[in-house]
Amino acid sequence: MNYPNGIKKVNNTNPITKETSYKNRGMTLEADINLSNEYYRDIDKAYIYKKPTPIKIVKVDYPSRSEAKIKEAYFTVPSTTDYNGIYRGKYIDFEAKETKNATSFPLANIHKHQIKHIKNIIDNGGIGFLIVRFLKLNKDFILLGKDFIDYIEGNDRKSIPIEYFEEKGYNIGIGYMPRIDYLKVIDEIYGGKNGK
Amino acid sequence: MNYPNGIKKVNNTNPITKETSYKNRGMTLEADINLSNEYYRDIDKAYIYKKPTPIKIVKVDYPSRSEAKIKEAYFTVPSTTDYNGIYRGKYIDFEAKETKNATSFPLANIHKHQIKHIKNIIDNGGIGFLIVRFLKLNKDFILLGKDFIDYIEGNDRKSIPIEYFEEKGYNIGIGYMPRIDYLKVIDEIYGGKNGK
Repeated sequence: MNYPNGIKKVNNTNPITKETSYKNRGMTLEADINLSNEYYRDIDKAYIYKKPTPIKIVKVDYPSRSEAKIKEAYFTVPSTTDYNGIYRGKYIDFEAKETKNATSFPLANIHKHQIKHIKNIIDNGGIGFLIVRFLKLNKDFILLGKDFIDYIEGNDRKSIPIEYFEEKGYNIGIGYMPRIDYLKVIDEIYGGKNGK
Repeated sequence: MNYPNGIKKVNNTNPITKETSYKNRGMTLEADINLSNEYYRDIDKAYIYKKPTPIKIVKVDYPSRSEAKIKEAYFTVPSTTDYNGIYRGKYIDFEAKETKNATSFPLANIHKHQIKHIKNIIDNGGIGFLIVRFLKLNKDFILLGKDFIDYIEGNDRKSIPIEYFEEKGYNIGIGYMPRIDYLKVIDEIYGGKNGK
C-alpha cells in the first residue's frame, strides 16, 4: 500500500542530507518535541522517545568488517504512533503532525491503523493523544485520544475543523524550556501535580 | 516535512534478504516475541511493539514521483530498548537477546545507555526487564530490571553467569500460543491475575 501523496510527517531523528530536503519543511514541531523530551529526561520527569522511522531494508553491503552500509531500503508505513514512553508510571503515546491548513486538520494525515492504535491505548488505560500544529495560526493543540476518536466515529468529514480543536483541544503554547510543555497540559487535564 | 511518495507498507518486521543474513542467526527469539505480541494484541491483552531498527539516512533517491529509495544509510546504536508498550495500563519495556554462551550472558550485548534506560524505567514506575535466550540450553529467562541493575552495580564481571539467571530470573518456557508467554510470568511476579 502506498502512502498518500503529500502526507506530512514530522521527523528529524535521522540526520538528513539535502537530498531529502522534503523533510526539512516540517521539522519544527518534531524538533520542538524532541528538545522538550530531552529536557524531561534531563530533569528525570518523563522518558518519552520518538520511535525510529520504519524502514524496509533490502540490501546491505559490508565495505569492511566493521561497517555495514545499507544500499537499498524503503520507507514503510508505521503501525503505531511516533512517540511513546513513561510519565509517572503511566504509559504515554502520541502522534505529532503539522498542517498548513488554517481551518481544519486533514485526517489523511493519520493512518487507519494509527487511529486503531490510539483507540487501543486509551481503552487499555494509557494516555493517548495528538499534538497538532497549525502552522498558519501558530498554535499547537493537544487533542485527547478520546476526543479524536469521538470525532472520527461521529463524523464523515475528512478533516477536523479548527473549531473542534478550539473547543475540545488544549492550546499548549510555546516556552523556552521546555519548548512545548505538553506534560504540563497533561497534568492539568488529568488533575496531577505539575513536576515530579 | 512530506513523506516521500510511494512509501511501501510492510507489516512484518523488516523482511531480510540474504545480504543481511547476520540477522537470521538471532532471529528466532525475536520472531517468537513478535508472534507473541501479535497474539496479545489479537486478544486485546497488551499492546507491545518492537521499535524499528534505528537508521541514519544519508541519501534518498526518487527514481519516480511515486517512489522514494534510500540509497545510503547506516545502522545506529539504539538509545532505548527494543520493545515497549502497554499492559493493563502499565508501561512495559524490555530488551531481548540471545546468546550462544552456555555458562553466562555477556554484558557486551547491552549498551550502556540501554542499561541507563532500564534503570530510568523502573525508577519511574515502569516494568522493565530483559528476555535472554540461552540457545544451547534451550531456555528463555526473564531477568527483572532491578535484578539486572543490581548485578551490574555489584559486580565487575563482564557477563552474568547462568547461575544468576537460575536464581533470580524466571524461566518462561515455550508454548504454542503464544510462543513465549512472558506476560504470564510478569503476572506471576507482580501478583496480577492472568488474562484480561
